[in-house]
Amino acid sequence: MKQEDLSVSKYFSEARDFIEKGILDFLPDADGYPESIHKSMRYSVLAGGKRLRPILVVAAAEAVGGDRRSILPFAVAVEFVHTYTLIHDDLPALDNDDLRRGKLTNHKIFGESVAILAGDALLTRAFYLMTHGALMDSIPAGQLLRAAHEMSDALGTAGMIGGQVVDLESEGKPIDPETLEYIHIYKTGFLIRACIRCGAILSQADPVQFAALSRFGAHIGLAFQIVDDILDIVGDQGKLGKDIGSDIDKEKATYPALYGLEESRRKSEQLIEEGIASLEIFDQRADPLREIARFFVQRTY
Amino acid sequence: MKQEDLSVSKYFSEARDFIEKGILDFLPDADGYPESIHKSMRYSVLAGGKRLRPILVVAAAEAVGGDRRSILPFAVAVEFVHTYTLIHDDLPALDNDDLRRGKLTNHKIFGESVAILAGDALLTRAFYLMTHGALMDSIPAGQLLRAAHEMSDALGTAGMIGGQVVDLESEGKPIDPETLEYIHIYKTGFLIRACIRCGAILSQADPVQFAALSRFGAHIGLAFQIVDDILDIVGDQGKLGKDIGSDIDKEKATYPALYGLEESRRKSEQLIEEGIASLEIFDQRADPLREIARFFVQRTY
Repeated sequence: MKQEDLSVSKYFSEARDFIEKGILDFLPDADGYPESIHKSMRYSVLAGGKRLRPILVVAAAEAVGGDRRSILPFAVAVEFVHTYTLIHDDLPALDNDDLRRGKLTNHKIFGESVAILAGDALLTRAFYLMTHGALMDSIPAGQLLRAAHEMSDALGTAGMIGGQVVDLESEGKPIDPETLEYIHIYKTGFLIRACIRCGAILSQADPVQFAALSRFGAHIGLAFQIVDDILDIVGDQGKLGKDIGSDIDKEKATYPALYGLEESRRKSEQLIEEGIASLEIFDQRADPLREIARFFVQRTY
Repeated sequence: MKQEDLSVSKYFSEARDFIEKGILDFLPDADGYPESIHKSMRYSVLAGGKRLRPILVVAAAEAVGGDRRSILPFAVAVEFVHTYTLIHDDLPALDNDDLRRGKLTNHKIFGESVAILAGDALLTRAFYLMTHGALMDSIPAGQLLRAAHEMSDALGTAGMIGGQVVDLESEGKPIDPETLEYIHIYKTGFLIRACIRCGAILSQADPVQFAALSRFGAHIGLAFQIVDDILDIVGDQGKLGKDIGSDIDKEKATYPALYGLEESRRKSEQLIEEGIASLEIFDQRADPLREIARFFVQRTY
């Protein structure tokens, strides 16, 4: 099966429904005081993401025999983290984007001040969920701490924020291959890898399983951003829900700009194959991870 | 002793030195890649704060017999949290302040994009520290999770961010006493109370001690913001390191504006007395908390 559209996958659509219900449970109510911030948070979280990151947490946990119900607050937390990064990235001072997922960006609707605070609030709520008492019913507190620590490490300046800073500072300048790879791995890859590592930690993966899943996560994380670059050139604006060609307009550093489209495609496919190969110690319980990995490189949105 | 200047207090100056060393240990190096974000984080953290919040964590922990060395990463984390709130608060889209602690605000030096990311990075690093493995040497993981959860709760939309939003939305409008109290308790009081509650949690306070410390924290937290309002009118710009009268310029909701200076002073003193009274079950190990509480209302900076 070609994984252009994950919604045809039974695993994916069930996992997505599971996450959507969790998101609704863990978002603040729209009419909770003060309403503006809650409306702003809900607007961006409910704008129709693919929920790939929480599904990766679930799929990684299940690959080592974990139970998705016991980790739901943590899985929802990573979607809140992802949404926080999008809201802040879109701000006028950063990427200055008007459209996201086919809708106006958060600050275009709610204003810059509320958008900044909504991003802050989603990051804060993510840690609130990662340390939620309900998780302790089935996961040892030490493992929970380790997972929250792993996630905060991946999100910091030795992770995602480091990538964002270098990305911003590289706009409009010639870029060398090492800096480009740094940006892609740090800006995008680290969060994807952290989702998989946290799923593994929460299900108490042994060290061999953990190392294999880490390797898988690092490979598909980089591939994901390379495909993002490709779709910014050849993608369908309607499917993607954002402006095509915006990387070129902003003189962003991309794989196609440095290596060309064909070589970028080849590189992303190779990364996915190597990532899947690192799952060889796992049985069919890792099939959803393999399926999502193939989607990463064959996706059109 | 009149507590106008805590630097004459042996406890306070020793605790402050202890925290300063911890801050230097847990800040990213200035020359770590990417440098701009690390320089920006260090600039604001090292701009000379009073370190009241981490000292409150330490003093609360010690009031119930805890050891400051075992909670250092957590205490440093709350100073990072505090600094993140200042950097984001000062942004053009929020309070648009040029001066903080007598120096240019973060975005005036590093630009808006880096300032937004530096705030994000400090909040992220705070959770990195709150879940730091070194804490587990002497504190049960369940207590650590509870403390990190408590802090994230106090920082969210049912806490500090809620207060910031209502504060922003109340500028230039008539305000009722209930909304003013909401802003002060949520915007400022919740973090101060959370510092004390987290210190208590980390030292495994019993429920009676925890309730007393919570009550103490709620009282001094509100008093702190009322005194902030008063100092914005009668304070010494040189000592405060920020513009005097900025609340009036921004038509901010303040206690003196609603109740007058004298009634605001009386209210803050009453809150401090009630707060200190709630510590009656504690022995002299709570004296630093009592001393800091008196400073809260007698401070001139």
